[in-house]
Amino acid sequence: MNFRINCDELLNKLNIIQKALPAKTSMPVLMGIKIDVFKDYMLLTTCNSDITIQAKISGESIEINETGRCLVQGKYLIDIIRKINSKQIEMFVYENKLLIIKSERSEFKLNIMTYEDYPDIKFVNEKNRDLEPIELESFPFRTSVKEILFATAVNEKRPILTGVLFKNENSKLTLIATDSYRLSKKVINLNNVNDFSMVIPAKSLKELLNILEDYEGTFNCYIDNSKVLFKIKETYFETRLLEGNYPDTSKIVPSEFSLITKFNRDEIMQAIDRVSLLSPQDKERNYSIVKFSVTNNRTIEISSSNQEIGDAIEEIIPIDNIEGPVLKIGFNSKYLTDAIRSLPSSDVAIKFTGEIKPFVVCSDEYPNLLHVILPVKLN
Amino acid sequence: MNFRINCDELLNKLNIIQKALPAKTSMPVLMGIKIDVFKDYMLLTTCNSDITIQAKISGESIEINETGRCLVQGKYLIDIIRKINSKQIEMFVYENKLLIIKSERSEFKLNIMTYEDYPDIKFVNEKNRDLEPIELESFPFRTSVKEILFATAVNEKRPILTGVLFKNENSKLTLIATDSYRLSKKVINLNNVNDFSMVIPAKSLKELLNILEDYEGTFNCYIDNSKVLFKIKETYFETRLLEGNYPDTSKIVPSEFSLITKFNRDEIMQAIDRVSLLSPQDKERNYSIVKFSVTNNRTIEISSSNQEIGDAIEEIIPIDNIEGPVLKIGFNSKYLTDAIRSLPSSDVAIKFTGEIKPFVVCSDEYPNLLHVILPVKLN
Repeated sequence: MNFRINCDELLNKLNIIQKALPAKTSMPVLMGIKIDVFKDYMLLTTCNSDITIQAKISGESIEINETGRCLVQGKYLIDIIRKINSKQIEMFVYENKLLIIKSERSEFKLNIMTYEDYPDIKFVNEKNRDLEPIELESFPFRTSVKEILFATAVNEKRPILTGVLFKNENSKLTLIATDSYRLSKKVINLNNVNDFSMVIPAKSLKELLNILEDYEGTFNCYIDNSKVLFKIKETYFETRLLEGNYPDTSKIVPSEFSLITKFNRDEIMQAIDRVSLLSPQDKERNYSIVKFSVTNNRTIEISSSNQEIGDAIEEIIPIDNIEGPVLKIGFNSKYLTDAIRSLPSSDVAIKFTGEIKPFVVCSDEYPNLLHVILPVKLN
Repeated sequence: MNFRINCDELLNKLNIIQKALPAKTSMPVLMGIKIDVFKDYMLLTTCNSDITIQAKISGESIEINETGRCLVQGKYLIDIIRKINSKQIEMFVYENKLLIIKSERSEFKLNIMTYEDYPDIKFVNEKNRDLEPIELESFPFRTSVKEILFATAVNEKRPILTGVLFKNENSKLTLIATDSYRLSKKVINLNNVNDFSMVIPAKSLKELLNILEDYEGTFNCYIDNSKVLFKIKETYFETRLLEGNYPDTSKIVPSEFSLITKFNRDEIMQAIDRVSLLSPQDKERNYSIVKFSVTNNRTIEISSSNQEIGDAIEEIIPIDNIEGPVLKIGFNSKYLTDAIRSLPSSDVAIKFTGEIKPFVVCSDEYPNLLHVILPVKLN
């Protein structure tokens, strides 16, 4: 193995595949980056228990003198390439023991790992050549995922909730995330695609978002029983899917409301932010609880009360007149701010059905996105 | 107690006194901010086991309706003032139980703490009215402290080394910092000031630097036996001094050299940075060890070798021809980069006296600043 390569291009690709390098692992071989050099291109591969990433370098960025392959400590290779202040570098394997990295003035010799120990990587579209690709567009896909991703469960009590449900039916792709205390739902149009349903781990989606961030255009998606592959230009990103049945959430979203309130988005965000300062913490979930009250004289108060510290109260003026019953409802302020943050419109609506019933946060400007929040009981 | 105050001015002062609010403490009363409101001004005071800070607000920023005093939870007061989006706020004590903070739309009620529990604060210039102030200039003072502060000891084995020695003799103020593996020394002229010697804890100096950062001009310093007070405009910053004898470091700095090398500063910094990537870690001190060699053919190599990972070697070209013996010396790379970083000149000099003798890092452009580094034994 022997090639000259453009240092920036190599670093770009290393930054992509780094996302699958495990921070800790019981399988030390996974700390390695697999390098395969063919006649016209090279592949860089990493994997952990969730995802596998493979990036390709070809064309003018690389000048291959000898094909070959090796496995090296990923962290060190990346650190070295990051610090090398050189346009071109030369890399070759010496006596099957060392990977030599040569730049203008410096020379690094990295001990190589046993290539054969690395797991056999086969992507789903190679295992099953009949899989039909689904074409997705980067911008709407990544925006939609970001709008709901925060609502997935963090703790692993119900593993299926740590992922996002992607359910395609009748040319509509619905994304659902819920931690059982709140739910976020987004619908995108997806024409000419067969129905499917899969649950992708939130962790994998975060890494995928990073890769999609700088890419505008379309990419392909191949869904298998237990895995999904995203093929973004020359990069392969494959993640395992979460097994099990995603709960039926269709009945959770209320559709009739007894009280609809509308606010200037920034005003209500700041008010909640301030009032939360003194709110009692729900220790188990580490969120602060605030109270939202519509009073008899049709004003709205957000307040919190904390025996040890003190009280906070703030009045906010809704955009339209309020019609509906007097109401007092308590909730985790973080849930409301998360929901409002994902709706970057000037106004947001909060729609209630009752004091201990789930309420909806949405915006006229984003008809395909909504958030449902479960209240907490007030003492 | 009842006053109206400009919110920005209050926040400025809270940001200053916050530096003495302990993160954790066995004396919960120290989590409080002491507020004293007099006829024409108010004082905000905080203290921890090392430092006491007092800030004054007077003039147009404050409109006092009733004098008084109280003690409130510092963290909460600061969080609230930070988030209040209002130009003016009103603050008053209600029934000796609550501090009310009112802005345009929001109202906070903070439980007050027992004022009488707070330690009695008396600054050294109040205890001893005969103390003569020493006038210092902010810019040279803070620059000098920054140039050497990093060399103080982090661990507390020899507590005196966790501080910086300020020794004034014959109109020369010498600042010394050492962790016993390296030493940094800076000399400033200080005319018409009596001799003195004190050791200020590095932690206190870091907080003092933060306060001085935005201030150009002179400030006064009052030195007592166990404490020193810095009076910066209307802010009082007092810190305890470290007790004990600072070691005599006069013989550590070598004055005759067998080999003097000069480098472009950025080049040597980057070379050390790269080579350190693979250097073995000194676990106890968490630094990486690199080797510096002058070879027979008068070139200079920086290298590191790590059995588990691999080797790195880099050649750097000194600015002048090298005259002197062949030499191989090992050291903690962090010590050299720290030293070079504090010398922002285009060139730096490294001066050696022998393979296992301390060496000096300095620059012609900064004749009053030098760093001494102890080498480590090479295997």
